[in-house]
Amino acid sequence: MAANQNKQSKMVGKQSIIFRDPPYIISASSVAGKKEGEGPLGHLFDLIHEDPMVGKNTWEEAESELMKQSAEKALEKAGLKSQDIRYLVGGDLLGQLIATSFGIVDLEIPTLGIYGACSTMGEAMTIGAILVDGGFADNVMAITSSHFAGAEKQFRFPLDYGNQRPYSAHWTVTGSGAVIIADKDSHKKEQGASVVIKGVTPGKIVDFGLKDSMNMGAAMAPAAFETIKQNFEDFGVKPDYYDKIITGDLGYVGQTILIDLLGEKGYDISHNHMDCGIEIFDQEEQDTHAGGSGCGCSAITFTSYILNQLRGGNWKRVLFVPTGALLSQVSFNEGKSVPGIAHAVVVEAET
Amino acid sequence: MAANQNKQSKMVGKQSIIFRDPPYIISASSVAGKKEGEGPLGHLFDLIHEDPMVGKNTWEEAESELMKQSAEKALEKAGLKSQDIRYLVGGDLLGQLIATSFGIVDLEIPTLGIYGACSTMGEAMTIGAILVDGGFADNVMAITSSHFAGAEKQFRFPLDYGNQRPYSAHWTVTGSGAVIIADKDSHKKEQGASVVIKGVTPGKIVDFGLKDSMNMGAAMAPAAFETIKQNFEDFGVKPDYYDKIITGDLGYVGQTILIDLLGEKGYDISHNHMDCGIEIFDQEEQDTHAGGSGCGCSAITFTSYILNQLRGGNWKRVLFVPTGALLSQVSFNEGKSVPGIAHAVVVEAET
Repeated sequence: MAANQNKQSKMVGKQSIIFRDPPYIISASSVAGKKEGEGPLGHLFDLIHEDPMVGKNTWEEAESELMKQSAEKALEKAGLKSQDIRYLVGGDLLGQLIATSFGIVDLEIPTLGIYGACSTMGEAMTIGAILVDGGFADNVMAITSSHFAGAEKQFRFPLDYGNQRPYSAHWTVTGSGAVIIADKDSHKKEQGASVVIKGVTPGKIVDFGLKDSMNMGAAMAPAAFETIKQNFEDFGVKPDYYDKIITGDLGYVGQTILIDLLGEKGYDISHNHMDCGIEIFDQEEQDTHAGGSGCGCSAITFTSYILNQLRGGNWKRVLFVPTGALLSQVSFNEGKSVPGIAHAVVVEAET
Repeated sequence: MAANQNKQSKMVGKQSIIFRDPPYIISASSVAGKKEGEGPLGHLFDLIHEDPMVGKNTWEEAESELMKQSAEKALEKAGLKSQDIRYLVGGDLLGQLIATSFGIVDLEIPTLGIYGACSTMGEAMTIGAILVDGGFADNVMAITSSHFAGAEKQFRFPLDYGNQRPYSAHWTVTGSGAVIIADKDSHKKEQGASVVIKGVTPGKIVDFGLKDSMNMGAAMAPAAFETIKQNFEDFGVKPDYYDKIITGDLGYVGQTILIDLLGEKGYDISHNHMDCGIEIFDQEEQDTHAGGSGCGCSAITFTSYILNQLRGGNWKRVLFVPTGALLSQVSFNEGKSVPGIAHAVVVEAET
């Protein structure tokens, strides 16, 4: 990364942060639904639920239960109790974050509720790493979730309506992922390489005026473009600085747009770009159209596949860029556009 | 504050943070609606809108406009441009934070969207101060808003329905408040005393099982109690350490409960407790029942009255504790309880 930085400052370029004492990702969990379990990453998830209601009475309670289980699994894998977590940073797609509020209330961890639509895992890891690197916390949990049925009810149509989905539509992932971010003292040597958060580039809201709630990839691609470009500029790096540049849920439509937009600026990411929404489902076999989406999509792809690749030594450094579409049912019905946002997190395996 | 702290650590007690290089509040703005302008604090607001639509076509657009104007006013008062603000931390009550997304998109500031219901201003100032104290940012804007009509539509009934309101109900404040939090180098001497953020106590979600969406004060009081008690314990202080302990929007019902709960633990705050929801309206003249509420309530009370008292030397130190009720229309209709949350911010005038 850029050498001409003031050694004391953690501000890099226009909008990035470098962590001088990079926080560790000491634990991660992935709880998924049936369809996700049947997808290409299914063998990597910690828990897979055959029952979409997860034994509960409503979609919202089901999602809360996914989140509760992923929080507990992350704690268990780290050998920690909830009182060892100084702060929890998390959110979800549901209005007023009810999946989160009801999912984590029993943990009794001081909580910062956040909303970045499907970019929420990026924002949670950003704030989590800031808390740890700044000495404000020893252990922080970053967590998020989404649920296909709850999201359809929230943003589009109830499932019973049986609406048709265009090919540009995404399939919201049912799942919850959590990571525990810790300082050096709290970090113990894990199996495989230790993984640290080296820096972040929090994103701006970008509105290209798109109004189609069935084409989120196109709405989010410009935001991903702006954040990734700024990351390159702020840190003075080129695309091949990263083994992988991994967006959250642009899907097939958004991926094409992102590669084109960066290409126009002289950045070729066609060889090392990956999208969690494309990886998590088998598009043809599973009929998921543009790809997976939802806060849970990038979260459980990160906490399973991406972390595995880093810990296993296959990748050394990735730019993880969860992407979000900032619409609500109200804004959509009132004819507003769909602004996007993307937060980039630089994640490295220690060698 | 407690003397036996490790000098390096910023973690205090169980869940609080002390800022070793306390960030300054260098600017603040308050934009309010007509009813708020007619209330006891009306003469202190920067802008008052007679038109509840603020010249827009929907309640949601009106709220976005309030937020835009409060952001611009805070910048103007600080003599800054939007590109001088490293990060914006903000949110609102509407599902998927649409008041914020559409209100601040044109500012093009990297944004961390947050949700803490009516405690959002406390959470925004907490994360803002963490960013500045930790060296991650020079200038941060913390901002929030609410709108009476948008909130009624979102959480209760459309205004046209003409429903009756019980005496325990709150009146959501129409308004937006913003503060700019800056490091020492960015701080210039203002009129009156300089005001700094000395510490924070982020709160836990507390659920006492209350289910009445028309009695938010009772739902939030236990959360305020937990956060304030923890603040006293973490910093090793008594209630009279603060000139004022100021909750967000407990109102008359919640205030009584809070004073009783703390009294049972041996903390008497009856002499120095104040509630923004009680201060902002004249209950008898303005028919506002339990008091004001909404993210805007504590925000514009802080950015007008509270800051004025600190800058003017009347108060030296306040504990500002915005309070939030974590319900949604969906969770309420599904018969769920209303958990509460409260984030405490220690604000001091420099002498």
